[in-house]
Amino acid sequence: MPEARRRAEPAPYCWALYAAEVDLDLSLDAASLTASLVDVPSVSGGEEPLADAIEAALAAQPHLAVHRDGNAVVARTSLGRPRRVIVAGHIDTVPIAGNLPSRTEQNLLYGCGSCDMKSGVAVALRLAAHVTDPSPDVTYVFYDCEEVESERNGVLRLSRHSPEVLAGDLAVLMEPTGAIIEGGCQGTLQAEVVTTGRRAHSARAWMGHNAIHDASRILDTLRSYQPRQPEVDGLVYHEGLNAVGIRGGVASNVIPDRCVVMVNLRFAPDRSAEEAAEHIREVFAGLPVTVTDVAQGARPGLDHPAAASLLAAVGGAPRAKLGWTDVARFAALGMPAVNYGPGDPQLAHSPDEHVDMAQIAECEAKMRNWLTS
Amino acid sequence: MPEARRRAEPAPYCWALYAAEVDLDLSLDAASLTASLVDVPSVSGGEEPLADAIEAALAAQPHLAVHRDGNAVVARTSLGRPRRVIVAGHIDTVPIAGNLPSRTEQNLLYGCGSCDMKSGVAVALRLAAHVTDPSPDVTYVFYDCEEVESERNGVLRLSRHSPEVLAGDLAVLMEPTGAIIEGGCQGTLQAEVVTTGRRAHSARAWMGHNAIHDASRILDTLRSYQPRQPEVDGLVYHEGLNAVGIRGGVASNVIPDRCVVMVNLRFAPDRSAEEAAEHIREVFAGLPVTVTDVAQGARPGLDHPAAASLLAAVGGAPRAKLGWTDVARFAALGMPAVNYGPGDPQLAHSPDEHVDMAQIAECEAKMRNWLTS
Repeated sequence: MPEARRRAEPAPYCWALYAAEVDLDLSLDAASLTASLVDVPSVSGGEEPLADAIEAALAAQPHLAVHRDGNAVVARTSLGRPRRVIVAGHIDTVPIAGNLPSRTEQNLLYGCGSCDMKSGVAVALRLAAHVTDPSPDVTYVFYDCEEVESERNGVLRLSRHSPEVLAGDLAVLMEPTGAIIEGGCQGTLQAEVVTTGRRAHSARAWMGHNAIHDASRILDTLRSYQPRQPEVDGLVYHEGLNAVGIRGGVASNVIPDRCVVMVNLRFAPDRSAEEAAEHIREVFAGLPVTVTDVAQGARPGLDHPAAASLLAAVGGAPRAKLGWTDVARFAALGMPAVNYGPGDPQLAHSPDEHVDMAQIAECEAKMRNWLTS
Repeated sequence: MPEARRRAEPAPYCWALYAAEVDLDLSLDAASLTASLVDVPSVSGGEEPLADAIEAALAAQPHLAVHRDGNAVVARTSLGRPRRVIVAGHIDTVPIAGNLPSRTEQNLLYGCGSCDMKSGVAVALRLAAHVTDPSPDVTYVFYDCEEVESERNGVLRLSRHSPEVLAGDLAVLMEPTGAIIEGGCQGTLQAEVVTTGRRAHSARAWMGHNAIHDASRILDTLRSYQPRQPEVDGLVYHEGLNAVGIRGGVASNVIPDRCVVMVNLRFAPDRSAEEAAEHIREVFAGLPVTVTDVAQGARPGLDHPAAASLLAAVGGAPRAKLGWTDVARFAALGMPAVNYGPGDPQLAHSPDEHVDMAQIAECEAKMRNWLTS
């Protein structure tokens, strides 16, 4: 899945196991290649061994020019085509949750990152290696630190260091969408809402005022909140407002004078970041609200000709993307961007994350068809 | 004040500043001696420099036999008197809160531990040094780690290693009581009350169940709780039930599946520890409750002859002790124990902790009168 703003700790053992060089065999079918990718742990911040392997495998392809920036790898064709499309995917994962190494069960491939999004990365690597004569020029972007705070994101870094390598007419982000085109994305906002009280010894609680007890007001507001489900450019989004963290307490014998509720708002792309922040302040009127992070969404953009040709090649009805994804970064760079990739997005970040291997092959076939037609 | 079950971090700088030996001058008046004690930081776990200084000062008194156990120091007269009383105080403090070094303002002495309870310790040190021919034999106990979890408490350790040095007919704990005899103490119980939910990506919150939102049920129960104020052996206690901590949250994009509320019950000494635990389970019926720590209270015990003689020497009406104190440990060793010392107990653990210097002198005079009459 898209973003995850938690500060991920790299799994400590990945350094030890994968200090040695890893060889990727791009002649493997996409499902087997996915398994190879899953078995190189790459929790955000620890992508170097995998980035090295991807760089080495792509540098061996004579039709590609390879660019490296930190743990991001960009490979480009330069055939002088009138159009250039970007095919992008992040190579990091959320922390490992006892779900490595990869394993298969009937038609399903399990393992950390199998769904989000090493299956999409495998498809992109296969296309990069084997579609040597695409109709548009293609820029493949494999980037790091998508699952952590925005400031570390590899696409953001590339857009600052080398914006020219990200130029294009359309971006396809191969995030898990269940092999359906998902348009745009919702924005996400983090805020802290605070209650304050007065400390006292807990044996004489009436001398103080308990800020944790007062937080029930915030939680009651969240429980009764009715999220919007607006239609934007023909797609229906679904907002949400949730507590994602709470902390309070000084010591076990002290009446606490402060309680902080961390809330997360998912907002449809008809709202700007500023409007989302204003909304949160209205919801918690009377309490101190600090917006700690906000990422604007992206409108669907499916009416753009380049997006329409992809839509025709893939078929089916598009739907709204609910999670925030880096389509918003490409939208901010001025090009339409859609999400399309194998894997059920609802399985992303879950310990039993898995992907249907047939869906990986389907995505590869449809993308190959689009790029060569 | 009495207990503080938090795990206190020793202030890092105390080691550096006070690695050198400290000399205590027991000929100073009690208020000046209090200031000297305050200026030797002794956050729980970091009492060694102060314990060394106390041991050295008492070892210089020929009428006392000194016993050391960790950072606890015991000094005893051995005059063959028919009665033996214990005068006890803890030498540790809660963490420093920008309130060192000590300073005086008119008749008040400010600083970490000035009230809780280095003023009481100063009185006890003055009595130990200067009352060379007391009517009862006296055991002075200066002990460590009272402000942290029970298992580290210096009196508990002494009672296991050398119970004979704690033998006596009455214990006077020189905790801050505003120079009024306070009888017995309330018990204290820590418990964790938990709500559970189901994780999901926060962009699709409806796939999960938010455990933090559910904690409002616990907070509402706490807000509406009506504490008892029972009379026990003639003194009125005042119970209390409070959240003292709350924690929950997985990551900023995950619907949390667990929220833990830490609650603290203060219970009058007419309830046993078992009854207090049962009460908490009833209050939060239907939710998992784990009792993590419990310390029984102590009934007042003021009808004991030794306590009555102290009461007569001090004068005034006794009142109930609301905080838990180590009187409960002495009560458990089979002797009556009361609280009596300089300092307003409501200032304990507060950053602007202070003590009235006249009250220190008053306590010393009344104790000296009692021990020599």
